[in-house]
Amino acid sequence: MRAIRKSRPAPGLELCEVPEPRAGSGEVLIRVRYAGVCGTDLHIADWDQWAQGRIRPPVVLGHEFAGEIVEVGADVAAEFRVGELVTAEGHIVCGHCRQCRMGDAHICQNTRIIGVDRDGAFADLVAVPAGNVVALNGIPATTGAIMDPLGNAFHAVLAGNAVSGATVLVLGCGPIGCFAVGVAKAAGAASIIASDINPRRLELARTMGAHHVLDARSEDVPRRVAELTRGEGADLVLEMSGSAEAVKQAFGAVRLGGRVHLLGLPKGEVALELSSNLIFKGVTVYGVIGRRMFETWHQMQSFLSSGLLDPTPVITHRFPLEAIDDALHAIRSGEAGKVILEIGS
Amino acid sequence: MRAIRKSRPAPGLELCEVPEPRAGSGEVLIRVRYAGVCGTDLHIADWDQWAQGRIRPPVVLGHEFAGEIVEVGADVAAEFRVGELVTAEGHIVCGHCRQCRMGDAHICQNTRIIGVDRDGAFADLVAVPAGNVVALNGIPATTGAIMDPLGNAFHAVLAGNAVSGATVLVLGCGPIGCFAVGVAKAAGAASIIASDINPRRLELARTMGAHHVLDARSEDVPRRVAELTRGEGADLVLEMSGSAEAVKQAFGAVRLGGRVHLLGLPKGEVALELSSNLIFKGVTVYGVIGRRMFETWHQMQSFLSSGLLDPTPVITHRFPLEAIDDALHAIRSGEAGKVILEIGS
Amino acid sequence: MRAIRKSRPAPGLELCEVPEPRAGSGEVLIRVRYAGVCGTDLHIADWDQWAQGRIRPPVVLGHEFAGEIVEVGADVAAEFRVGELVTAEGHIVCGHCRQCRMGDAHICQNTRIIGVDRDGAFADLVAVPAGNVVALNGIPATTGAIMDPLGNAFHAVLAGNAVSGATVLVLGCGPIGCFAVGVAKAAGAASIIASDINPRRLELARTMGAHHVLDARSEDVPRRVAELTRGEGADLVLEMSGSAEAVKQAFGAVRLGGRVHLLGLPKGEVALELSSNLIFKGVTVYGVIGRRMFETWHQMQSFLSSGLLDPTPVITHRFPLEAIDDALHAIRSGEAGKVILEIGS
Amino acid sequence: MRAIRKSRPAPGLELCEVPEPRAGSGEVLIRVRYAGVCGTDLHIADWDQWAQGRIRPPVVLGHEFAGEIVEVGADVAAEFRVGELVTAEGHIVCGHCRQCRMGDAHICQNTRIIGVDRDGAFADLVAVPAGNVVALNGIPATTGAIMDPLGNAFHAVLAGNAVSGATVLVLGCGPIGCFAVGVAKAAGAASIIASDINPRRLELARTMGAHHVLDARSEDVPRRVAELTRGEGADLVLEMSGSAEAVKQAFGAVRLGGRVHLLGLPKGEVALELSSNLIFKGVTVYGVIGRRMFETWHQMQSFLSSGLLDPTPVITHRFPLEAIDDALHAIRSGEAGKVILEIGS
Repeated sequence: MRAIRKSRPAPGLELCEVPEPRAGSGEVLIRVRYAGVCGTDLHIADWDQWAQGRIRPPVVLGHEFAGEIVEVGADVAAEFRVGELVTAEGHIVCGHCRQCRMGDAHICQNTRIIGVDRDGAFADLVAVPAGNVVALNGIPATTGAIMDPLGNAFHAVLAGNAVSGATVLVLGCGPIGCFAVGVAKAAGAASIIASDINPRRLELARTMGAHHVLDARSEDVPRRVAELTRGEGADLVLEMSGSAEAVKQAFGAVRLGGRVHLLGLPKGEVALELSSNLIFKGVTVYGVIGRRMFETWHQMQSFLSSGLLDPTPVITHRFPLEAIDDALHAIRSGEAGKVILEIGS
Repeated sequence: MRAIRKSRPAPGLELCEVPEPRAGSGEVLIRVRYAGVCGTDLHIADWDQWAQGRIRPPVVLGHEFAGEIVEVGADVAAEFRVGELVTAEGHIVCGHCRQCRMGDAHICQNTRIIGVDRDGAFADLVAVPAGNVVALNGIPATTGAIMDPLGNAFHAVLAGNAVSGATVLVLGCGPIGCFAVGVAKAAGAASIIASDINPRRLELARTMGAHHVLDARSEDVPRRVAELTRGEGADLVLEMSGSAEAVKQAFGAVRLGGRVHLLGLPKGEVALELSSNLIFKGVTVYGVIGRRMFETWHQMQSFLSSGLLDPTPVITHRFPLEAIDDALHAIRSGEAGKVILEIGS
Repeated sequence: MRAIRKSRPAPGLELCEVPEPRAGSGEVLIRVRYAGVCGTDLHIADWDQWAQGRIRPPVVLGHEFAGEIVEVGADVAAEFRVGELVTAEGHIVCGHCRQCRMGDAHICQNTRIIGVDRDGAFADLVAVPAGNVVALNGIPATTGAIMDPLGNAFHAVLAGNAVSGATVLVLGCGPIGCFAVGVAKAAGAASIIASDINPRRLELARTMGAHHVLDARSEDVPRRVAELTRGEGADLVLEMSGSAEAVKQAFGAVRLGGRVHLLGLPKGEVALELSSNLIFKGVTVYGVIGRRMFETWHQMQSFLSSGLLDPTPVITHRFPLEAIDDALHAIRSGEAGKVILEIGS
Repeated sequence: MRAIRKSRPAPGLELCEVPEPRAGSGEVLIRVRYAGVCGTDLHIADWDQWAQGRIRPPVVLGHEFAGEIVEVGADVAAEFRVGELVTAEGHIVCGHCRQCRMGDAHICQNTRIIGVDRDGAFADLVAVPAGNVVALNGIPATTGAIMDPLGNAFHAVLAGNAVSGATVLVLGCGPIGCFAVGVAKAAGAASIIASDINPRRLELARTMGAHHVLDARSEDVPRRVAELTRGEGADLVLEMSGSAEAVKQAFGAVRLGGRVHLLGLPKGEVALELSSNLIFKGVTVYGVIGRRMFETWHQMQSFLSSGLLDPTPVITHRFPLEAIDDALHAIRSGEAGKVILEIGS
């Protein structure tokens, strides 16, 4: 079958023919229809320091996808049937470490990732543990293919139960930031302010429901947020960019007693003024990683099945599997929303 | 000034001229524009057992209202100004009992109620403690006049943070039940099922956003809820009727691990099957009384100011102050949504 | 090997020789040292209505136990090793129903119970899924054998985070009630009031840390609680008896805004005065079933390993496996605390 | 009467005779028995930059105290009686800002502090708003005099409900750090690790219940915590020192999914590695300021009245009012626990 593979410990990806995988014990085999391309795939293609430390070639990429079950392995619960359209959580967790046993599997210390630590979904077929599979139940397969990053946004917005009736500030309007705008809207945010340095991304944020957009290149974000909130600041700040500057803005713009959820990954240290911006303010900060397994997935299914949220406007580019380089290029341009590959049907 | 008063310890209300009140220390005086009529007013008019034990005539009725500040007493914070449109929390709490000091003032053990324990708002003017006053900040005065019962609905829907993406069952579609449907919709419920024994009320519930309505006279509510939820049951059940039958339905229809919020006040005891319907199910039950002071009011202001919710379709009848008997009659008919009095302008 | 078995669909238990089980895929085989005898075993022995509907003889009884791993099946994580002393959660859950996926596996709708739905631990050897096994890490095996019911008490006491500094009322001082007294003490309850109709049980509750004991045969429990709490009532009420009378006392004795956790299983309906005792009070009720998997187990390990809690005074009777009838008799007498079987070494 | 006063905008404090205050409307007048000396008093004495920006001389210092009510002003609730022993919350809040109305009065944006913004308790008499007064109900007056900083420790330990059965790391063993050790012990922490750079403080932490003490001058705190927790890290980290180095240790030592509560106030910015130490770990951070009003005070009363906690070993020095300079000197030495003034009787 066709697969996009990191074949050697060097920059670049390779489109190649590889043997078809089978569904092992406890696994299902899925014929992939769509797959999302993610910043992680870029790191692997570029063979950066992180990739060099983590990836053991050869490995097929791709951890965001949807498709049809074509084979069910031994010891799989009866509810997974051939022909069903499904997506999957990309983190395969151990189930027996303390985090897993305490209901925090999203921070399992033995996590293995599909498309990173084992063969992934940029291919005609992918085998995954049945425990990771989530039925689409009528959700379109294109949407199913982006539920992994959409789940990051749900996790970020809904953690701490602070969104209902709230003023939400989203810093960074890449795909997950734009998803977060839409999720906040659907979950009853009263006002959503989005900030980015790219006008196209701000436009996309507005499409997804942002009431106010700020161009962080020219505007003083905390001051503008204060103006928009009668001097109070935002109830809930979602930092989705990983920019050190934005992290500082987050703490400057949050209200007394508010919440800051950090999802974007800063490179290196960030110098923070903790006394006046966190302690005196009585702020709560939460680090967002992955999706709660499987509360977040259940929430997504509810929002998507009921029509509360349509995330598809964030999908700006679609390419065939063979055009992986064009897909990566679109992401690198900084102009794209979500980029997906059309693999099967 | 004009006032609707319980003048004697006997059935009936009286429209009479009474002296104008003044704003005492810590109080503001409000010229009333609109006032909501509530089941409590019916009890007082009818002079039932509860009223006989609680009311000390003469007292002016009315605890739901909005109007304009016309006088500010001594020792009132500068933010309350003459000319401002406001509403007020009807519960005057002591501020020093354990509940008040623990942030649970809605269950203050020394609560005194405007229009019950002191003169209320079915009058041209009403004096209330400044601490109870809530600014409308652009919310229309008709809406302001119903924020007290609307607050009951917000309290019921938002307690426990269970509404986002949830299937919500509302039992009883009187005014607070219909408000609850609207609040649940605005707060991101994925599916709302409403039940009542009156087709007009069900129609109103549908107008406010119910996806499914059940006629409890002819339908088996728990079974229908099961059908609508793939056998799971409702995530959040709001019992707004006080009917013993509906309370039983609540526990029958809630899902494993779900929540039941009881607001309607049953008369007498209700026989409940606790083992299979509450304990084995791992259910949480919460008694809803009043509005959280003032978290609920802040939430309402956010939802109303931002346009997330328009509760006005629930207002089905409007009468001048003099037509209080017609207003009570409309409520007694069981056909009305919210009934308000138009008092000033 | 020896086993206590329900061999036929009729009253009585049988001590018999049965083939030794093996560790299947994903299972471990445990040589049992101690096993706790539970009310459930009584129901099975007596062949009451519940047992007739649930049990499919022949089945070996026993779901509370500790012992040594003697065989590890295929596909079991490396951390489970032959020679390790362990206990196990008795509920085998499906892992893929909504409750399991939402972190509420204790209310899995497909639960199968060891010693009820498959062969249990009143035997020299028992095979259990590795996912259910919990390492003792130095906790004595006698304590390990009672961690299943002790976990019910932990679940009841710690749910809702209401115990710290609280006045706790425990209604019913059977083994789980007495465990709850000890857990509340260790978890920082300021005052513990225990009630029962049996003086020996009250004495045991006092041994476990109760500050006040009430004889429910002669004392008015809600009134006595009011006297002991300056009229406020208890912050947290744990109903552990299943008596309808005690359930009513729970709602009468809880303070405004307090919590009632129901664990005891009433037979038939209980008539409750909901308006004044639940709704006006703003009370929260929670149904306690099983143990949170595996948060409760982790909490138990912390409390037991650190010496915060010693539950062993609750163990009042020990019998050899062959004396199962004597063990059941001790429980029936109502005079016993926890009864355990000494099976191996 | 005698008073310790900042009389002029310059370094130094003055013992002087000042007119006796009276209880204004809504206030009570208290004859002071004991008062705690705090780092804030040091800043005011030293006339540092913060003091120059905040203090308007002349002002009597002292915000931690206990004493006897000797006069009750107008409009004060009946429960405050002459002769009663009381303490008081030092933060006077507005009651009508958003934070106050939302139950977060500890971050009221209009807070005025006794002994900072109005005359305080280093004097024979102090007048305070009745709403700030807390009855001692049998708690000794020496303990009453330190309930303000003890309340900081309660707030830090109990926020987030994470202490029960937990491994708690306390960074910084000044008075509030040592109090926190005692509170964690009383609230059911399974293991408490305390770190400081001063051996006497570590000794005091051990006295208050620390199981392990680390000398941060010579030991690698995160590594030692890892060793003491089987590599997991601490469940709850309380940063009480304000040292940038300790803040970094906090994030290095917290476990996956754990909590970091920041109370110590760092000077300037702190450079933090957020990606691996907060975001990938899924950590929650909370800024601790003041005491929750009045949940924290109620918790303190429960713990102190019931004997769960005795904080008095932390009081290492006592001086008469006149020896304020000796008191400040003791604090400056870094060797003291809590320092109190003996003022009246």
